[in-house]
Amino acid sequence: MTASMRLAIATLLFLGSAVAAAQPQIQHWRTDNGAEVYFVAARELPIVDVRLTFDAGGARDGNTPGLARLTNELVMAGAEGMDAGTIARQFEANGARIDNASQQDMAYLHLRSLSDPGRLAPSLSLFRDVVAAPSFPAEDFQRTREQMLVSLRQSQQSPGKTASRRFKAAIYGDHPYGTPAAGTVAGLKAATRGEVKAFYERYYAARNMVIAIVGDLERDRAERIAADLANTRPDGEPASPLPPVAAGAVGETLRVDFDTQQTHILLGQPAVRRGTADWHALYVANHILGGGGLTSRLSEEMREKRGLSYSTQSYFAPAARKGRFEIRTQVRNDKRDEALTVLRESLHAFHAEGPTADELASAKRQITGSFPLNLDSNRDILGYVAMIGFYDLPLDYLARFRDQVQSVDADAVRRAFRAHVDPDALTTLMVGPYPETRGEE
Amino acid sequence: MTASMRLAIATLLFLGSAVAAAQPQIQHWRTDNGAEVYFVAARELPIVDVRLTFDAGGARDGNTPGLARLTNELVMAGAEGMDAGTIARQFEANGARIDNASQQDMAYLHLRSLSDPGRLAPSLSLFRDVVAAPSFPAEDFQRTREQMLVSLRQSQQSPGKTASRRFKAAIYGDHPYGTPAAGTVAGLKAATRGEVKAFYERYYAARNMVIAIVGDLERDRAERIAADLANTRPDGEPASPLPPVAAGAVGETLRVDFDTQQTHILLGQPAVRRGTADWHALYVANHILGGGGLTSRLSEEMREKRGLSYSTQSYFAPAARKGRFEIRTQVRNDKRDEALTVLRESLHAFHAEGPTADELASAKRQITGSFPLNLDSNRDILGYVAMIGFYDLPLDYLARFRDQVQSVDADAVRRAFRAHVDPDALTTLMVGPYPETRGEE
Repeated sequence: MTASMRLAIATLLFLGSAVAAAQPQIQHWRTDNGAEVYFVAARELPIVDVRLTFDAGGARDGNTPGLARLTNELVMAGAEGMDAGTIARQFEANGARIDNASQQDMAYLHLRSLSDPGRLAPSLSLFRDVVAAPSFPAEDFQRTREQMLVSLRQSQQSPGKTASRRFKAAIYGDHPYGTPAAGTVAGLKAATRGEVKAFYERYYAARNMVIAIVGDLERDRAERIAADLANTRPDGEPASPLPPVAAGAVGETLRVDFDTQQTHILLGQPAVRRGTADWHALYVANHILGGGGLTSRLSEEMREKRGLSYSTQSYFAPAARKGRFEIRTQVRNDKRDEALTVLRESLHAFHAEGPTADELASAKRQITGSFPLNLDSNRDILGYVAMIGFYDLPLDYLARFRDQVQSVDADAVRRAFRAHVDPDALTTLMVGPYPETRGEE
Repeated sequence: MTASMRLAIATLLFLGSAVAAAQPQIQHWRTDNGAEVYFVAARELPIVDVRLTFDAGGARDGNTPGLARLTNELVMAGAEGMDAGTIARQFEANGARIDNASQQDMAYLHLRSLSDPGRLAPSLSLFRDVVAAPSFPAEDFQRTREQMLVSLRQSQQSPGKTASRRFKAAIYGDHPYGTPAAGTVAGLKAATRGEVKAFYERYYAARNMVIAIVGDLERDRAERIAADLANTRPDGEPASPLPPVAAGAVGETLRVDFDTQQTHILLGQPAVRRGTADWHALYVANHILGGGGLTSRLSEEMREKRGLSYSTQSYFAPAARKGRFEIRTQVRNDKRDEALTVLRESLHAFHAEGPTADELASAKRQITGSFPLNLDSNRDILGYVAMIGFYDLPLDYLARFRDQVQSVDADAVRRAFRAHVDPDALTTLMVGPYPETRGEE
């Protein structure tokens, strides 16, 4: 059998019957210079994923909305003696892949490679060289900023994206969560290369970093990889805690004029931090109210009973500070006032009464049945491990999720929902034809 | 330990060290009424995926473009005594997921469920009931058709999608591959519910079906599942072979007027059937020419040397009949003629000379390094298994892929490319501001 054939078979090994030799677990340690490391050995596939996550998302933009994403997009654009093309070619030459993203709370840089040392070592070496000293070339700075501005203008043509942006601005006001991670036209135009470099130095620091490693390697190798990566960055400091979210405006209703066939309706408020003890009860509550697809109360009221909307959803978006609770739908313009009444009444009823016994049993069955379906690849696992590390959740968060959901009772669901959602303090946003408001913005 | 805890741990077992008990393999058999079955046991996760694939894609539209997709979209919209909401709710209640798609050659219906018999059995039973006798409700027929028309009109606003549509029409002419699987406005408006029912009866037949099963179950259980599913459908007949693709127009250049900042340029022709013996050599050839990201010849010429385009790609899209070879880029309008010259010269040079030794070695290294990175979940595996079954590829196609690539030499690459691509018979399509052609369509 050739080496290639062996590797091809190794690739497919996880398809065969397998016997687990050890209970899986997330291992956690800290590097000498202060980076937190989360490691899962997954030996079935000859792949290693390494993700560096920083507390460096849009919430850190300061007075330059878009700065965090601009920085993140530019890390792989150049380093000592290498331009973007050279870097990309060298990763490609080893079959490795890199990607990156910058969201509201976190920003990350990600390397995926074969675990074969002949592939992994040069890919890691290059990854380290770039992360150590990205050069942020002036030409790429201009081009990336221009691309972000084009995306921003396109998103302003979309009623759904406009609704999301305006809604966050309305419920968060001056809090950093009120400004989109994609930036603003003014912010991007004002951004300078100097600011990008300073942002990188401040926030891409070892003590502001979580390293998630999932794949085909031993703990001692993972330790060396993590230490070497952390050492490319100055120790620095963890980012300061974000300011708390102030209590929002009470019961405000905003109308935004937009030429569309369907009015977008959003209701919600700042609601929940990642890591709250109530999370499983809230998760069940939201599933029953509007998270559970066609079986939810909101779907039943809006779609089944009245045919008002094809799709109505609610969700919690937990974050480092109070993430939002949101109900969202689109309806025909001539039905929007009726729809708004239905949404508000449904929410009030659920808030007052909590779930029925049938609803609770059905929700638990659905959640425990579908949760594992989300977890069928190293990619999925890596995302969860990075989240667990970033938000400092319990290491057994995944293993215990289903049990935690099972243990929730109707009273816990009702109490949790009432503790985090106040239906009398909701902000309502309507985006559709409202000619009378034209020019107000 | 509770049952839920055991299941949660089972879910994560594949993260631990594992020992393969058997070499993995795709098992293949035929049901009594003529459906082909492809099965892979994957016991690490408590999940079962079942996909029914039919030779019922857009190529079977006949004189009603869009009919195949309309039919596929409507299967889950109703059955004996159940409307779309009831069906969706019952799947959800078991945590199961269904999805569907209709492409150029194939259409499929897919069920994903936990393997726990208490979940899997009711989900399979419901899946069988719907597939056996979908009712295609008149109201859903109208709504789905309207949604498809809206999507179609939106895609006509997109220069990239317009380019794809016009390009296929140009290179395939009256062949079924010349008409988009998404349909046409005229086709969708003309479609009737009767046609949908007739299409389903004709093409969703056992002898026109491939059943792919991947997941946590034994062969005998997979056999029963496949037999029961196949028995819901009449035996029917395999779809007739599609007509061969006629030799295309030689060297035609089309210009389509579109108000955009960047001109889309497409060059190509009908080129290759799925299952050709040359496939691995062609795959390597395309990687070197324009498939390999920033390291390809086209990227080098267009981006690195001349800064003409951020992204230039080429690819083969093998199909039941000759699928297309395509080179594709977007460039500033004032650079489009220069870009076209560069693309044509690069293609001619590669066609004449084939790859250098360095290019070949680098391409093999990249392909063999990155191929396993595409195969890290049951979802990925299921897609490959269904493809192998549908196109009747060797059962060891995946296991041997890397070895086959390794065995290709420079002469094989050059010969394969010359056998399938004729640079003097390319069709060229430019979509951008061409006011002189306005109104020609």
